[in-house]
Amino acid sequence: MAKTAGIVLIGNEILSGKVVDANAAYLCRELRGLGVEVRKIAVVPDEVDVIAAEVSEFSRAHDIVFTSGGVGPTHDDVTIEGVARAVGVRVVREPRLVALIEGLSRGHLTEARLKMAEVPEGAELITNDGLLFPAIVARNVYILPGVPEIFRQKFEALRERFREAPFFLANVFVDMGEGALAEHLNALLARHSDLLLGSYPEFANPEYKVKVTLESKDRGLMERAVADLLAGLPTETVVRVER
Amino acid sequence: MAKTAGIVLIGNEILSGKVVDANAAYLCRELRGLGVEVRKIAVVPDEVDVIAAEVSEFSRAHDIVFTSGGVGPTHDDVTIEGVARAVGVRVVREPRLVALIEGLSRGHLTEARLKMAEVPEGAELITNDGLLFPAIVARNVYILPGVPEIFRQKFEALRERFREAPFFLANVFVDMGEGALAEHLNALLARHSDLLLGSYPEFANPEYKVKVTLESKDRGLMERAVADLLAGLPTETVVRVER
Repeated sequence: MAKTAGIVLIGNEILSGKVVDANAAYLCRELRGLGVEVRKIAVVPDEVDVIAAEVSEFSRAHDIVFTSGGVGPTHDDVTIEGVARAVGVRVVREPRLVALIEGLSRGHLTEARLKMAEVPEGAELITNDGLLFPAIVARNVYILPGVPEIFRQKFEALRERFREAPFFLANVFVDMGEGALAEHLNALLARHSDLLLGSYPEFANPEYKVKVTLESKDRGLMERAVADLLAGLPTETVVRVER
Repeated sequence: MAKTAGIVLIGNEILSGKVVDANAAYLCRELRGLGVEVRKIAVVPDEVDVIAAEVSEFSRAHDIVFTSGGVGPTHDDVTIEGVARAVGVRVVREPRLVALIEGLSRGHLTEARLKMAEVPEGAELITNDGLLFPAIVARNVYILPGVPEIFRQKFEALRERFREAPFFLANVFVDMGEGALAEHLNALLARHSDLLLGSYPEFANPEYKVKVTLESKDRGLMERAVADLLAGLPTETVVRVER
């Protein structure tokens, strides 16, 4: 069983179409590369009770949870409080963060700036040479900022914590419509029930009609399934195989 | 109260990072323009029970639900079955779709192709001159395909059904950090509690530091709030206002 992950994106700006999120796609790609299976993504508004309910459910359902957004100093930054409620603790001011913010504010310390020193009680702070601000982890919930550059910087500092046995993937590009291909795929799946098999039509592509993805943590299983699929397809319909 | 919507994206390819979804961002933008409030987005794998649970919850929580993906002829296309379970009906073969598919298949009618004639029992079919295939609606759930071109084509054919009273939006671009700006925003919100107020820092932008969004279905309220915010900010920090 692969380790599982869930991603909760927090922000009215995504739901109202003002901002296009880039963090979920980045994280899905990175986690897959690390061998982690992302099982669910949710996008929710900047509302404490909604965030708390969602993060609570995600925290129970998945091995690891990531949140993105809602960690700044303004009124609509309520992720810390939401995560604290989700894991059943209070919000506290973390002395190490207060010291850090005092240093950065050079005398202009406001209540709003101090809000960024708040964490769910008992949270772990992960520091790293590359990080100005530590990453905050409450139970199994990694609280990341929404700004893509900082989101990536923090994830990069954490990434080796999440490495698992890898997935092995082959893409088979086929010049046959999905309607005709489906029976080959059903038969393949009947013989290799543990195979992760995907079928993606490309209507506008002149080179092939469908990209078939065959994937497994067991490389032998994946290779046997590829050989099996290729043996069943008319040779002229197989455009190429990528591994 | 604005009409609310939820979006369920279905597809292992999104969760595994193979494909970057474009449909949710498009739909959020379009629905906002129509005056509809998107409250939640979920991305779930190609698994009937997971889809059914999610769509069921969305269908109860929101006025309108859209699904994207999982409606082709192959083994991983299980959205119709998931939605049928969510609304508590059987999957049936729809005679009008069978006739349509027979016509398009010109004698090459396979079981896989006929799968595309399946709908949740009692579903409404919405046809329109521009659509090759009708859009399928089960209870309040609009079942749309994942391929972006077809997704948009179907939504365009449906869009006027969803039009509501519009949101009015002003963007105020401010050359002041969020740490200092926060107290102005808190005070503003204390005086205009129904205002939809957003604050978005732009770390890499030389022109301004924060984009503040003020929004309401009540244009007068929005305009009063803009005037109020501008009156409280030092003039030199207001870079520009966009409506």
